[in-house]
Amino acid sequence: MRFYILSIFIIMSISAQAQDKVVLVIHGGAGTILKKNMTEEKEAAYEAKLREALQAGYDALTAGKTSVQAVQSAIHVMEDSPLFNAGKGAVYTNDETQEMDASIMRGSDKQAGAVAGVSTIKNPIDAAIAVMEKSEHVMLAGKGAEEFAEKQRVTIVDSSYFKSDVRLKQLKRVQDHEKSVLDHDGDDRGEFDESENEFNVDYIEDKKFGTVGAVALDSAGNLAAGTSTGGMTNKRYHRIGDSPIIGAGTYANELVGVSCTGHGEFFIRNVVAYDVAALMEYSEMTIEEATQRVIEKQTEMGGKGGLIALDKDGNVSLPFNTAGMYRGYITENGKITIEIYDHQD
Amino acid sequence: MRFYILSIFIIMSISAQAQDKVVLVIHGGAGTILKKNMTEEKEAAYEAKLREALQAGYDALTAGKTSVQAVQSAIHVMEDSPLFNAGKGAVYTNDETQEMDASIMRGSDKQAGAVAGVSTIKNPIDAAIAVMEKSEHVMLAGKGAEEFAEKQRVTIVDSSYFKSDVRLKQLKRVQDHEKSVLDHDGDDRGEFDESENEFNVDYIEDKKFGTVGAVALDSAGNLAAGTSTGGMTNKRYHRIGDSPIIGAGTYANELVGVSCTGHGEFFIRNVVAYDVAALMEYSEMTIEEATQRVIEKQTEMGGKGGLIALDKDGNVSLPFNTAGMYRGYITENGKITIEIYDHQD
Repeated sequence: MRFYILSIFIIMSISAQAQDKVVLVIHGGAGTILKKNMTEEKEAAYEAKLREALQAGYDALTAGKTSVQAVQSAIHVMEDSPLFNAGKGAVYTNDETQEMDASIMRGSDKQAGAVAGVSTIKNPIDAAIAVMEKSEHVMLAGKGAEEFAEKQRVTIVDSSYFKSDVRLKQLKRVQDHEKSVLDHDGDDRGEFDESENEFNVDYIEDKKFGTVGAVALDSAGNLAAGTSTGGMTNKRYHRIGDSPIIGAGTYANELVGVSCTGHGEFFIRNVVAYDVAALMEYSEMTIEEATQRVIEKQTEMGGKGGLIALDKDGNVSLPFNTAGMYRGYITENGKITIEIYDHQD
Repeated sequence: MRFYILSIFIIMSISAQAQDKVVLVIHGGAGTILKKNMTEEKEAAYEAKLREALQAGYDALTAGKTSVQAVQSAIHVMEDSPLFNAGKGAVYTNDETQEMDASIMRGSDKQAGAVAGVSTIKNPIDAAIAVMEKSEHVMLAGKGAEEFAEKQRVTIVDSSYFKSDVRLKQLKRVQDHEKSVLDHDGDDRGEFDESENEFNVDYIEDKKFGTVGAVALDSAGNLAAGTSTGGMTNKRYHRIGDSPIIGAGTYANELVGVSCTGHGEFFIRNVVAYDVAALMEYSEMTIEEATQRVIEKQTEMGGKGGLIALDKDGNVSLPFNTAGMYRGYITENGKITIEIYDHQD
């Protein structure tokens, strides 16, 4: 049954790309998503939520709303779901709090907004959009970002909104694992071995997984890209990953929009989201060539993850170098394609 | 006398570029630096401090130290001086505190480190280097960054270290100006009119000026770039500018190193530091062509500022679109060039 559904998706995907332009693409995180570790129920839940997010963004676009509003609508669905590491489902920090990051960029005028390390904002993408639209700044952090968001009437919630037994258990597993690594190595760097034993798969899954993102193309031909995340489980020292960094986790110009997911440090160091745009503009690569090249660079450096990209002509690319990435797109005619695993699986 | 000194510098600059490769380039901020507003004493003080910074970095290089260590030595001199908006001379936030940002990137392996919004670290560049060398992360913020830096034995100082009557007066002038703009426009966006009347010149000077940076090329042929700043006077909401953003304010790879200064939001939106590298690699531009192109893009977008860039062959470029930029470089043979104003002045 699962094979049947996926076969249809692949066929739909091929025909969709040939016939019909894509207007919205989303991801719900890349990681060690292996079919053997997935239940049918879990798979169905992810597929349903990705479909809902795509439909919400599509409805915004068909109602004549902007690409920024479509990105916002799609990301809201994922931020409001406990399935993803963003908003409601944000992972725990070392202090058992949530510190969320989000960013948005509008391609037409290259305006951008981002928040880093916010703990009280229901939908961090809304705060990023408020920074873009209502301030002279691009990036606000921590309590200052929350204070600004509150003034702009972005919805604030009590920290209890983010509490979850599942996420707390993830934190404990990560802490136990890091403690055992620490005891063994006497190393305080918190690094982890990505070798594929069962325990590490769980560990990595727990640690850095589930960032959400969207790129939309509206009826005026304008692109926008947005990303939202809870960051890394057990993170300390107010670590900031690539998601709120314009150029790294999110980028949009008149040519292409990009949102990334994965091991953020590598995405920052390779300026991944902007690199897709630079390769397209300066090296005259197609979106497919450019995105493949940046993922190759990530692989060479040792950075795991993926990205979604959508260009001004409605061409889409969704490469990753992990076992899977929750992803999907919808065409102008409303055809939805959703995929989870690697095509080769 | 001033004309005579500057003429010598220009001649030295031309001959230096033709004969001798540059090993270290620094800036102390770009802005509305007009000769008519400068005293001879002030000019001499800046020149002496830039010379001291270049010499410190050069001494590190000739002692066989790495490009990262040379950048650190040069930036220390400027961070420890009240002349620049970094470290000791960091400007005041709206809360009458300091919130400093810094970043470092090593070209050979594209490792990077950054801190944002730190208030207690004497030399924020040291904290950025500690993040690069001692953590698995690239970017840490606020109290978390301070906690990490303290663990790594980075020098912590009492907040009184940063107190300064000059900077406090700047804050008051900026606040008075913004209040008058607010009263006039009823607009809480804190934007400012950059028209060139006397008051605005002072205002802009007070507001966003004096970021420091350095790019070095060591004897092993490795580049490194670093940037350190106090950010914008009167900033609120924990605003983060381009200085701690890898790709925006700082970037280095095997080909080129870049450090930026100016109106940070524009530098983030154009991913300026990485854009220089992308134009050189993908469009096969020279360092001169690439840096001119990115400054043109900044001008088109309305972003004021400048940058310094040094490539693997020791070619240097120091473009800006403001009236002046404190800047200088030193060649392999120890020849120092320092400039402040635009050549056309």
